[in-house]
Amino acid sequence: MEERILEKNSNLCVGLDIAVESFPGVDPDLDFLKAHAKKVIDATGELAVAYKPNLGFFERWGSKGFEWLEETLDYIGNEHILVADAKRGDIGNTAKQYAKSVFDYFGFDAVTVNPYMGSDAIRPFISQPEKGAFILCRTSNPSAGELQDQETPSGLLYENVAQCAVQLNENDNVGLVIGATVPQEIQHIRELAPDLPFLLPGIGAQGGDLEKSMRYGNSNGIALINISRGICFTGDMSENAIRKAAENYLNQIRKFSNEF
Amino acid sequence: MEERILEKNSNLCVGLDIAVESFPGVDPDLDFLKAHAKKVIDATGELAVAYKPNLGFFERWGSKGFEWLEETLDYIGNEHILVADAKRGDIGNTAKQYAKSVFDYFGFDAVTVNPYMGSDAIRPFISQPEKGAFILCRTSNPSAGELQDQETPSGLLYENVAQCAVQLNENDNVGLVIGATVPQEIQHIRELAPDLPFLLPGIGAQGGDLEKSMRYGNSNGIALINISRGICFTGDMSENAIRKAAENYLNQIRKFSNEF
Repeated sequence: MEERILEKNSNLCVGLDIAVESFPGVDPDLDFLKAHAKKVIDATGELAVAYKPNLGFFERWGSKGFEWLEETLDYIGNEHILVADAKRGDIGNTAKQYAKSVFDYFGFDAVTVNPYMGSDAIRPFISQPEKGAFILCRTSNPSAGELQDQETPSGLLYENVAQCAVQLNENDNVGLVIGATVPQEIQHIRELAPDLPFLLPGIGAQGGDLEKSMRYGNSNGIALINISRGICFTGDMSENAIRKAAENYLNQIRKFSNEF
Repeated sequence: MEERILEKNSNLCVGLDIAVESFPGVDPDLDFLKAHAKKVIDATGELAVAYKPNLGFFERWGSKGFEWLEETLDYIGNEHILVADAKRGDIGNTAKQYAKSVFDYFGFDAVTVNPYMGSDAIRPFISQPEKGAFILCRTSNPSAGELQDQETPSGLLYENVAQCAVQLNENDNVGLVIGATVPQEIQHIRELAPDLPFLLPGIGAQGGDLEKSMRYGNSNGIALINISRGICFTGDMSENAIRKAAENYLNQIRKFSNEF
């Protein structure tokens, strides 16, 4: 991942969360959403190093939605890092099935996973060195702290998760998800996990801090800055508006990348 | 849910986790698995009060797998409680999409959800009083305790989750997932959440304790005893063998139901 980020000089990950609700005043059908997803990919292909479809937005349409996901991945092709935002977490027997889904069937490079069930639930996603997992550590949503910030004898709960991720990183394919909305936590977790890639969502609609995300999260190309709604549904939603928004974010990313 | 359990005098939930790997020596295709799933439903329809397909086993086949899930739910019909074992957990905006998937698109009655991201990630699944969520509390897998048993200022982490679930239960549609492999925890969580339905997986392949699960978990019909591999892949895997296994489990459930 680091090589591809440095080679393209882009930490930009475009989140593909294409929902009916994002087109107020319109009542879009699946074909409308498919066309919009292609528009986003056309507009951002040269700028983004990664795409992150969130599986919930596809699953909502049932089997037709998963056909759409298949078409979307074909349309993106092989030049980008593909992250399945799936937040899976299940017993080992089931986690193996999910790993077969995201890696072997859909061909994703990485997946987001949930640590609540412990390391059993994570290992099936990190057994192939060429495939990886970003473990939810300190998330971007308002209620994230309810569990994640609980104090334990060995530090806050999310600190335990970061330490566990470091231990699980035998194949050099474990990363962490940290919200760009909590830059102090990014800084702190970078100290705990100096070598792990970070996936940092929450810029744009959720109000995350891009400068601090790059300052604290990126170190020699190991942060993916994810932007979903701030790129996919910007301005008049034309290809031109989407490209301009992505260029704007990428310019800021590059500026902060050179500064730190 | 309680009414349907008492009416049918059955707490039996059959987990539909139909995987290639469960047929050693065979190399089953999707049609083979579909036929086996129908066989399980035919054999258990009169005995089970609920079915719990785990979405990972369907997603592994991509869009064709979700077509299979749609066919499976049609085949089950409307006489059973349908639990989506999905273990979803995402920010509110995405959780709404997953809720549309499992409730509005697929027509499930309930879904399993993961509490790591806090109450934002749960609320979209419990906003409709006729639909519900079972929150992962203390799970059945070997590494469950790594996070769930962490001590916090307000008790063990899973105790926090149980207390949070009680607070979220405004619509009387919140339950908890607790592994049948940890009966002492079932007993303890029943004290913390006296009125919440429990979904208790882990009987059979995972070695859970049916007697204690009923003793501690069930109280006036508010425990679902889930059995997946112990029913679906028993003996020679004939319809007769599957029915016999389900009858055997149900007889034990009824016996313990009358004892406590």
